[in-house]
Amino acid sequence: MQKIALIGCGVVGQGLLKILRDKEEFLRDRYGFEIQLVAVSDKMKGSLMAENGIPLASFIDHLEAKKNIEEFKVDGATYGLDPLETIKRTSADTIVEVSFTDVKTGEPASTYFREAFKAGKNVATTNKGPSALFHRELAKLAEENGAFFKYEGTVMSGTPIFSLLDYALAGNKVTGVRGILNGTTNFILCKMESEGMPYQEALEMAQKLGYAEADPTADVEGFDAMAKVLILSNVVLGADLKAPDVDRKGISQITSQDIEQAAAEKKRYKLIGTTRIEGGKIVASVKPVKLPLSDPLAGVSGATNALTFETDLMGPVTIQGAGAGQIETGYSVLIDLLTIHRETTCFHDHGG
Amino acid sequence: MQKIALIGCGVVGQGLLKILRDKEEFLRDRYGFEIQLVAVSDKMKGSLMAENGIPLASFIDHLEAKKNIEEFKVDGATYGLDPLETIKRTSADTIVEVSFTDVKTGEPASTYFREAFKAGKNVATTNKGPSALFHRELAKLAEENGAFFKYEGTVMSGTPIFSLLDYALAGNKVTGVRGILNGTTNFILCKMESEGMPYQEALEMAQKLGYAEADPTADVEGFDAMAKVLILSNVVLGADLKAPDVDRKGISQITSQDIEQAAAEKKRYKLIGTTRIEGGKIVASVKPVKLPLSDPLAGVSGATNALTFETDLMGPVTIQGAGAGQIETGYSVLIDLLTIHRETTCFHDHGG
Repeated sequence: MQKIALIGCGVVGQGLLKILRDKEEFLRDRYGFEIQLVAVSDKMKGSLMAENGIPLASFIDHLEAKKNIEEFKVDGATYGLDPLETIKRTSADTIVEVSFTDVKTGEPASTYFREAFKAGKNVATTNKGPSALFHRELAKLAEENGAFFKYEGTVMSGTPIFSLLDYALAGNKVTGVRGILNGTTNFILCKMESEGMPYQEALEMAQKLGYAEADPTADVEGFDAMAKVLILSNVVLGADLKAPDVDRKGISQITSQDIEQAAAEKKRYKLIGTTRIEGGKIVASVKPVKLPLSDPLAGVSGATNALTFETDLMGPVTIQGAGAGQIETGYSVLIDLLTIHRETTCFHDHGG
Repeated sequence: MQKIALIGCGVVGQGLLKILRDKEEFLRDRYGFEIQLVAVSDKMKGSLMAENGIPLASFIDHLEAKKNIEEFKVDGATYGLDPLETIKRTSADTIVEVSFTDVKTGEPASTYFREAFKAGKNVATTNKGPSALFHRELAKLAEENGAFFKYEGTVMSGTPIFSLLDYALAGNKVTGVRGILNGTTNFILCKMESEGMPYQEALEMAQKLGYAEADPTADVEGFDAMAKVLILSNVVLGADLKAPDVDRKGISQITSQDIEQAAAEKKRYKLIGTTRIEGGKIVASVKPVKLPLSDPLAGVSGATNALTFETDLMGPVTIQGAGAGQIETGYSVLIDLLTIHRETTCFHDHGG
């Protein structure tokens, strides 16, 4: 039984809770996996710590009725603890952190993580900031304290890339990673190409559909993809890069003429995040690249994400899937919780 | 220390041995993984059983000099055992079976596997026959005897699909699988489309390049892909399908006109293997399908393989990579050996 404390109870946190509710029986029967939710703390919605467990189904109903967390009554519960106090006081084995992402400061999540690791607690997170900025320090702190640091959802939501490497591609050395890491810009480029839309019109459509923010800078200027390239560099290639080390260029200067010219050359513009070992150095970038149509990344359409790992034994291996979504991102945390479960209990899954 | 016996010492077996030689230090340091080769038996090249171990580097040199296995001298070794006797008498924990594939009878590999499982020995194989024909029986026999049955290389060579499902996509229910499972036919269709070659000319080019056999029937008529669809049906969806249950059609009737017409519709022919749950039944086929260009499988070019899993939590997830090659197929066995190592020793890999 893994006890979890949930920090942040927005879309992703609720997505995870729904999966845990709906899959309870399947996860127990197939993997021997059981969790108990013992604390929830959200800066906007209040907090609740109940060491004998918070009943999932009724708690989800409560949240869906848009009620404050503190109105959910559990015998012997403690209310009003902020995230940091919750982490300090909870008996949870694993802190699930799915709160606000700030890729400029990595806060407040990085402070939460340090506190958790010092107390020997595992962290499973979807937050890009901490690993983009402080991965090496945080991974070291976790290891020193015998805690797991898991972040499957930070780059491609629930499309598994770190567990793909750790398990399915084990034994390979990765020499480079290249991917479409931002669904919004991929959507815009696809619209520009397939329907001949000018950039501005495609951007407005992405905003209307909820793919792009009112201020689209983080997406279209490549800052979101850059944070992901930093994570990939620091996790997969063991680098310790910072934002200025990434050569970053967005798509806002791409014109319809550029798109047409690429098509005439049987090529296609994609915003590609890359990090690779070149002459002993790690070289990282985010920029629009004209890919030949035969490139596995050239065919990635819409708001989908994809990543190609360059490996020593298998050559290029590409994985493609959703890069966002409530259930998908909630699922990324389930992968992490299952990995912690597997590594701590050593259960055997002889397959189904 | 995992002791292995190698049944079949051709291209794939030697590929595996080279990986184990070249990666010895890396695999030990990173995963605590160590193997000892204690027996080799090949119907053409002779056999050798040496319970104190066969030195890898000098044995590989011996094989590369095209010498018979029995000329390789090891103190106290036993020579002249056929594969079945080797399996009966070896002290190996794991039988690595990479010998001749017969998808019509599944023999002699299936007999080897039954013998191994009855003795409580694990099997790691790249052989399609046994799982295409007798998966349910073999998996049950393995489980009853506390042995692992691993077959990562049977469908997409070293591009990991079963370990992707077991680990990285754990927690999902798979409702369908769809893929490009035969590199030869994909190469032919790509040549017909991109260079306007007639079918016969593209086939001859594939034969010249060594992708297609002199008798290309197994590839072009879809028998190879059908065996893989049977494996996917029986492993991933828990079915017990037999060859006549798969609706099979090859590509030999596809004309240049068909290809052109598809292109005019912004579509592309691919030989698609599919198995999915439909109304409680499992429906499986191999046939040429006109895919819209936006389909992740439409962009798969050349002799590459790709597979899309339909999952309940993550929707479609696609993996693409090599579907053949000496090192790639040898690597598929390494995945299996590492999985057996992980599940039996419960090592912790905190990442690199």
